[in-house]
Amino acid sequence: MQLANHRIQVSLTRETLQEPLPFGSSECGAEVRFRGVVRGNEDGRRIKGIDYSAYEPMALASLESIVAAFQESVGAHSVVVEHRIGFVASGEPSIVIALAQPHSQGAFDLLASYLHRVKKEAPIWKRPVFETRD
Amino acid sequence: MQLANHRIQVSLTRETLQEPLPFGSSECGAEVRFRGVVRGNEDGRRIKGIDYSAYEPMALASLESIVAAFQESVGAHSVVVEHRIGFVASGEPSIVIALAQPHSQGAFDLLASYLHRVKKEAPIWKRPVFETRD
Repeated sequence: MQLANHRIQVSLTRETLQEPLPFGSSECGAEVRFRGVVRGNEDGRRIKGIDYSAYEPMALASLESIVAAFQESVGAHSVVVEHRIGFVASGEPSIVIALAQPHSQGAFDLLASYLHRVKKEAPIWKRPVFETRD
Repeated sequence: MQLANHRIQVSLTRETLQEPLPFGSSECGAEVRFRGVVRGNEDGRRIKGIDYSAYEPMALASLESIVAAFQESVGAHSVVVEHRIGFVASGEPSIVIALAQPHSQGAFDLLASYLHRVKKEAPIWKRPVFETRD
């Protein structure tokens, strides 16, 4: 999706997440990125990683509707939302959100808001994969 | 500087800022990055860019002391702070701050705190370079 000079990209992928390219717009002074990394333990037990599953068309539609809602509420802006599906090993990213805003505080607030809504609304299920059965 | 498994990097540079590599620690679920881009205008006038100047040893010491203070107050963490010196064209980044924290909200808060202190305390001067003398 391309809104005037804005880059909007939403995807689900089974591949390692790439670092989104910078937006580099001279209208936006603040570019921020969040990278959610799978941690090495869950409820105090070591895990190998997390298996993410989703009915992909529905999960993608959910992410797209979150992006559309923020485009409407804060005005058009560049944003990349990428979520892994399938097994993601500890230490690897499962989600990347990057966006641009004119000013830093607006960028920080919007990034936190995106993450909150994605975690709360996107129908993507997490299953920890433990290191041992013990 | 290296604190246990943490990467700490502070620099002033006349070269184009690089994208810091991800930290990729399985202890830290949240990696965030701020990229401050020179905007195309200042007080309503188009600018070519901004010329940043500093007495470099003092500016570097200031950045290092900000990093040391946060290592002390929030606990050891990976962080990269890079600031351009010299002329930076509109659309190019003049500062990059990247850091890792166990959780997303702590990462967002710390990133905003770093940026606030760097802008307020680091003795780096900005001079806008206008497009025309008009």
